[in-house]
Amino acid sequence: MLTLDTIRAAHDRIRPHIHRTPVLTSGILNARLGAELFFKCENFQKVGAFKARGACNAVLSLTDEQARRGVVTHSSGNHGAALAWAARLRGISATIVVPENAPAPKKRAIAAYGATIEYCAPNVAAREAAVDRQIATHGYELVHPFNDYRVMNGQGTAALELIEDVPDLDIVMSPLGGGGLLSGTTIAAKGAKPGVKVYGGEPAGADDGFRSLRDGVRITDAVPDTICDGLRTGLGDKTFDILRTNVDGIVLATEANIIAAMRTTWELLKIVCETSCCPPLGAILEGNLDVKGKRVGIILTGGNVDLDKLPWQN
Amino acid sequence: MLTLDTIRAAHDRIRPHIHRTPVLTSGILNARLGAELFFKCENFQKVGAFKARGACNAVLSLTDEQARRGVVTHSSGNHGAALAWAARLRGISATIVVPENAPAPKKRAIAAYGATIEYCAPNVAAREAAVDRQIATHGYELVHPFNDYRVMNGQGTAALELIEDVPDLDIVMSPLGGGGLLSGTTIAAKGAKPGVKVYGGEPAGADDGFRSLRDGVRITDAVPDTICDGLRTGLGDKTFDILRTNVDGIVLATEANIIAAMRTTWELLKIVCETSCCPPLGAILEGNLDVKGKRVGIILTGGNVDLDKLPWQN
Repeated sequence: MLTLDTIRAAHDRIRPHIHRTPVLTSGILNARLGAELFFKCENFQKVGAFKARGACNAVLSLTDEQARRGVVTHSSGNHGAALAWAARLRGISATIVVPENAPAPKKRAIAAYGATIEYCAPNVAAREAAVDRQIATHGYELVHPFNDYRVMNGQGTAALELIEDVPDLDIVMSPLGGGGLLSGTTIAAKGAKPGVKVYGGEPAGADDGFRSLRDGVRITDAVPDTICDGLRTGLGDKTFDILRTNVDGIVLATEANIIAAMRTTWELLKIVCETSCCPPLGAILEGNLDVKGKRVGIILTGGNVDLDKLPWQN
Repeated sequence: MLTLDTIRAAHDRIRPHIHRTPVLTSGILNARLGAELFFKCENFQKVGAFKARGACNAVLSLTDEQARRGVVTHSSGNHGAALAWAARLRGISATIVVPENAPAPKKRAIAAYGATIEYCAPNVAAREAAVDRQIATHGYELVHPFNDYRVMNGQGTAALELIEDVPDLDIVMSPLGGGGLLSGTTIAAKGAKPGVKVYGGEPAGADDGFRSLRDGVRITDAVPDTICDGLRTGLGDKTFDILRTNVDGIVLATEANIIAAMRTTWELLKIVCETSCCPPLGAILEGNLDVKGKRVGIILTGGNVDLDKLPWQN
C-alpha cells in the first residue's frame, strides 16, 4: 500500500537513521528561469542517495523471522549499497547480486557496508536467476529496487520533507527510472499538499516510462541509451499502476540538456550530484515544462560520481 | 580593531544579507582519521565564498560620505566579486582593478554584479598604481582584500557561527593567504571559546606566512608556486601583527595532499569547493597536525571552480 499515511509511518520509522537533507536554491538560476526552484539535496543522504530511505524502510519493516533470514537484491548501483547499509543497521545479513562488469567503486561500497556480493552475468535473465537461487537456497527476503511498496513508501519521505520545508510549492519533480521514487513522491506530495502538480523527468534516450504512461501499456523491452545509469530500468507493474492514475506527466530531456543541468547544478549550487539527478532540470532548461512564475521543488537523487569521468569532459 | 565584540557587531551588521552556511560532516572521513571534522561550508555563501562577509561588513561600515564616493579594490578573485556584490547591496559604485590576464569567468562575475572593471598590467606595481590613480581621481574608499579591519571583522563571523553550531571544538582551522580570514577566525574562535586552538593551513609552495610567523619577520618578496590561486598573497602588516601574537601555528600541505583533500571533500561531502579551501585538510591528511580524538572545525572558503580544469585530471 502507498498512501500519505503509510509514507508518514515510513518517515517515523526511518527518521532516526537518515539525514534530514537540506533544500538549496540559487538566485542566479531563479533569475535566469523566472521561477523559484527548490532542490532537495539527497546527494547528502546516507550512502549518498535517496535509496537509503526505501532500503531502510524495507529492512525495518521486516518481521523478526524475515530479518533472521536476511535480505537479497540485485543492483549495481545505489540501491545495493543502500540495502547493505540498512541491513547492517539492523544487524542482519544482506546479499547483493551484482553483474560481473559493475564498476569497482560500486562493488567496494557494497562490500564496505558488510554485504555479501554474488556475481552474475550482465543480463536480466542471469540476474533474476541468481536472485531466485539465493532466495531458494537461503530463504532471503527480496527487497526490489523499486517495485516494492516498502521501498516506495521510504522514497516518498523525501517529498514529505520537501513539502514541510517549502509548503507553497506549485510543482514537484523527480527523475523517472523504475518509478519507485516518482511513485512515492507523487502520493506524498499530492497527499500533503492537494493541488500540487507532480512531474517525472526522464532521459529522452530512455523514454519507456513516458511512452508506457502515454499509451497505457507498460513497455518491458526498451533499450535505453543514456548516461543516466540510474534511470535505465523500465517501470514495474506496481509503479506503473500508481503512476498512470496519479502523476501529472513525464517530461523528457536530451542528453545535452541533462549534462547542462548537471553542470549548472555544480556551478550554481556548489554541490556534487549524479547524472541521474538531472532530467527534471534538463527538461526545464529545454523548455519542456512551463515553470514561469512557479515554485518548483526538485528532488536531486544522489551524489555518487566518478570524478575522473565527468560528462562535460568527454 | 579586531576583537570578539567588533566581530559580533560585524555579524549583527551583515547577518540579514549573508547565508548562514551549513556545517557538514562525513562519517567515513571521521572513521578514517580517528577524529571528528566539522566543515563550515562557505562555498554556499553569497558570491560562492566567505569573501562576501568581509566585503559586506566593509561596505556597510562606510559613512554616508564615503559611500557616496564609492569603493575600489584590486582582485582578480572572489574579493572583487564580493565587493561588487556588497556595493550593489548598498547601491553605491564599485571599481575593481583586475589584471589584464585574469580569467574571463572572474571578469564576468564582477561585471554581473554591476561593478566597473579597470584593467592593469599583471604585476603588483601596476596594480597599486592603478588603485592609487582611481583613489586620487575619484576619491574612492579602498577596501583591501585582507589588510583592513572592517574586512577581517567580517571574515571572523564564519568562525563565530561555527562555534555557535558546534560548541565543543578543540581546534579551528582556516586556510592562510593574506591572513584576513585567519586573523578573524583566530580572534573570533579564541574569544568565543577560550582554550580552543587555531591553526592556519598553507600550501608548502607558498609558505611565506609560515616562515614569517616562525621567524618574526614579515616576508614580502615570496614567489608562490601553488594551485591555490586564492593563497598566493603574502601577509599584510596588520594581519601579521594579529597572527604572530594569537594564532597557535601554521601547518603546511604539499600540492599532492591539497589535491587529495579537495577530491576527498568532493567525494565524501558531495560539495564543490576550491583548491584554496584545502590546505587545512591537506595538512591533516599529510600527518602534520595531530587530530586523533579531537573535534576539529575547518572553514571551507569557497566554491568557485573551473569545472573544465580539475586538478586531479591534469
